[in-house]
Amino acid sequence: MKLQVSDLEDIARGAAFLGTGGGGDPYIGRLLAQAAIAEFGMPEVVEPEDVPDDAVVFSAAMLGAPTVLVEKASNGDDIDLALKRMSQRIGKKPDYILPIEIGGLNSMLPILAAARAGLPLINCDGMGRAFPEIQMVTFNVYGVSATPLTVVDEHLNSAIIETADAKSAEDLVRAVAVQMGLSVLVSVYPMTGKQVKDYGVHHTLTLALEIGRKIRQGRETGDPVEALLSYLRTTQYYNKCKVLFDGKVTDIRRETTRGFAVGHCNFDPLDGKGSALQIQFQNEFLIAKLGEKTLTIVPDLVCVVDRETAEPITTEALKYGQRVKVIGVSAAKIMRTPESLKVFGPQAFGIDEPFRPIEELNLL
Amino acid sequence: MKLQVSDLEDIARGAAFLGTGGGGDPYIGRLLAQAAIAEFGMPEVVEPEDVPDDAVVFSAAMLGAPTVLVEKASNGDDIDLALKRMSQRIGKKPDYILPIEIGGLNSMLPILAAARAGLPLINCDGMGRAFPEIQMVTFNVYGVSATPLTVVDEHLNSAIIETADAKSAEDLVRAVAVQMGLSVLVSVYPMTGKQVKDYGVHHTLTLALEIGRKIRQGRETGDPVEALLSYLRTTQYYNKCKVLFDGKVTDIRRETTRGFAVGHCNFDPLDGKGSALQIQFQNEFLIAKLGEKTLTIVPDLVCVVDRETAEPITTEALKYGQRVKVIGVSAAKIMRTPESLKVFGPQAFGIDEPFRPIEELNLL
Repeated sequence: MKLQVSDLEDIARGAAFLGTGGGGDPYIGRLLAQAAIAEFGMPEVVEPEDVPDDAVVFSAAMLGAPTVLVEKASNGDDIDLALKRMSQRIGKKPDYILPIEIGGLNSMLPILAAARAGLPLINCDGMGRAFPEIQMVTFNVYGVSATPLTVVDEHLNSAIIETADAKSAEDLVRAVAVQMGLSVLVSVYPMTGKQVKDYGVHHTLTLALEIGRKIRQGRETGDPVEALLSYLRTTQYYNKCKVLFDGKVTDIRRETTRGFAVGHCNFDPLDGKGSALQIQFQNEFLIAKLGEKTLTIVPDLVCVVDRETAEPITTEALKYGQRVKVIGVSAAKIMRTPESLKVFGPQAFGIDEPFRPIEELNLL
Repeated sequence: MKLQVSDLEDIARGAAFLGTGGGGDPYIGRLLAQAAIAEFGMPEVVEPEDVPDDAVVFSAAMLGAPTVLVEKASNGDDIDLALKRMSQRIGKKPDYILPIEIGGLNSMLPILAAARAGLPLINCDGMGRAFPEIQMVTFNVYGVSATPLTVVDEHLNSAIIETADAKSAEDLVRAVAVQMGLSVLVSVYPMTGKQVKDYGVHHTLTLALEIGRKIRQGRETGDPVEALLSYLRTTQYYNKCKVLFDGKVTDIRRETTRGFAVGHCNFDPLDGKGSALQIQFQNEFLIAKLGEKTLTIVPDLVCVVDRETAEPITTEALKYGQRVKVIGVSAAKIMRTPESLKVFGPQAFGIDEPFRPIEELNLL
């Protein structure tokens, strides 16, 4: 399948929605991808089931705090170098490029990388959303090594990291990223076609495209939030979904610390009646609570959108007085297994509460 | 030339002296080297002038804060992996091992590395003393690239760093070292035999051996400090030297910050008469001042020794009430060039005072 340049805007919007507030600003990602495509052409998109088992698959992503990512962007050479260092280290050239996370900017980075490298892009990622730390992907859950990991900064300084486990790689690359200025290019989880097929969250690039498209089309017909939910209910992963809250931002606390944007946000109901909603975040929105009652909890998706246009709102774009709808969405099945919950369930974020699926919490 | 196991104690003592308070604890380094030699045999020591121009030369060193280095030691596998990663990256096996700094622990690490790898050790280093940061070596001053740099922790997590300049490599490896626990193995400045010959500080391993030997022999004849100074006056580099102060420690302020042990120490004269001496340090002693008068300033060596035994005292071993002699010593000529002073002169340590040779400051 071939993407059209006009699809990028829809993918960026859909990926921002799946980014659940994190994953970097999709607007910047789209501009970067458009420029790369103008120069190098649009990469082919292939389905994971069509990738040979022994194919060499590299990923490309930006890593940092979203608050910084909006101010610093990839210059392209950093992507090329991240892939080159990986090739040098493992002694193989990549056959395919894969997004590790479909959320936000990191849906776009692999399009850039694939365009620049003249390689096809696989319609699959490792979470079907965005997460703040690199061990938080299905590939790690099911035994694919996160390293060798390559990391490159805007000055083309680079490091190749190799660790015994993905959490050690995360700790190390985070320290490197902080030193490099909190906006770096990484290639991580080099893997085979078989591993992509077995452990990936399939078809998420086209899901992001359709989500973005449905929001856009919904604006033309009048209710983009409803158009979005109607579409989500037809999808493979995101079919349990609900508008959790309709209100406005009344308090937002945010700090960039340890390499992350962490904080929480309060929303009051528009009509001034009933309980307030609180959302806690670490780059991504993690848990939405109405008073004491949890409505959606990670790895299920908490998404905040503009209440009129359904434009997804990232944590760094949250502003006092903003009128929003908060939407809860089910994660892919592979993201909810006991093995996966150990790696990116609520406890992994310091939340002292077990995971419960959105459909149970809300009787969907 | 072949070292004897009994030489290690003398080298460690001499290297502690040349370490000017830094470079890590030589006692631990000696124990590590002895264990490696018992298992792998003593490496051959070759003079830099006998190394072929096209030889592949790797270094091995520990990097971290001395306050931590005394508590964590290399397990050997980390050294092997640092060299292996370097070989993988540059596609060549090493022919020789070189000490990057002769001061303290890092005089011993290359002996371990050479013994384990079954390679000869070159009688030469990149400073003829110890310094806290990796850009502070003659090889960098004269254009040898500090990177690829490999860094390995006790758990065998590793990173290969490549940067445009040595200061960026220092910043990055320091961030990595802090994350890895502030005691890591590095291999840095991979170079050719020609570069070793042209830019190294020659014969410093045997100089350290002789310094340690003269202190030991001096203890038998009664005045080890005088025996030491008599010997230094006959050497190629360290021939301008003087006991700057005879006194006791009255104040010591030290903190481990940004990956370094920084602070200052005050000494009062033993007879209670005259001005106090103050020494400022960053891992190594940097400047000795008697009241307002500077007596010795970096890159010349400020060394603190026990006033009776001439045992060198490291910054982390300084204690209230300790009775010491402070000795100033000239650095090698290549360390005092305008190019070198830009990289490791007083300004590089934030000292707002120009370098002046010890012989000028003290009319030697």
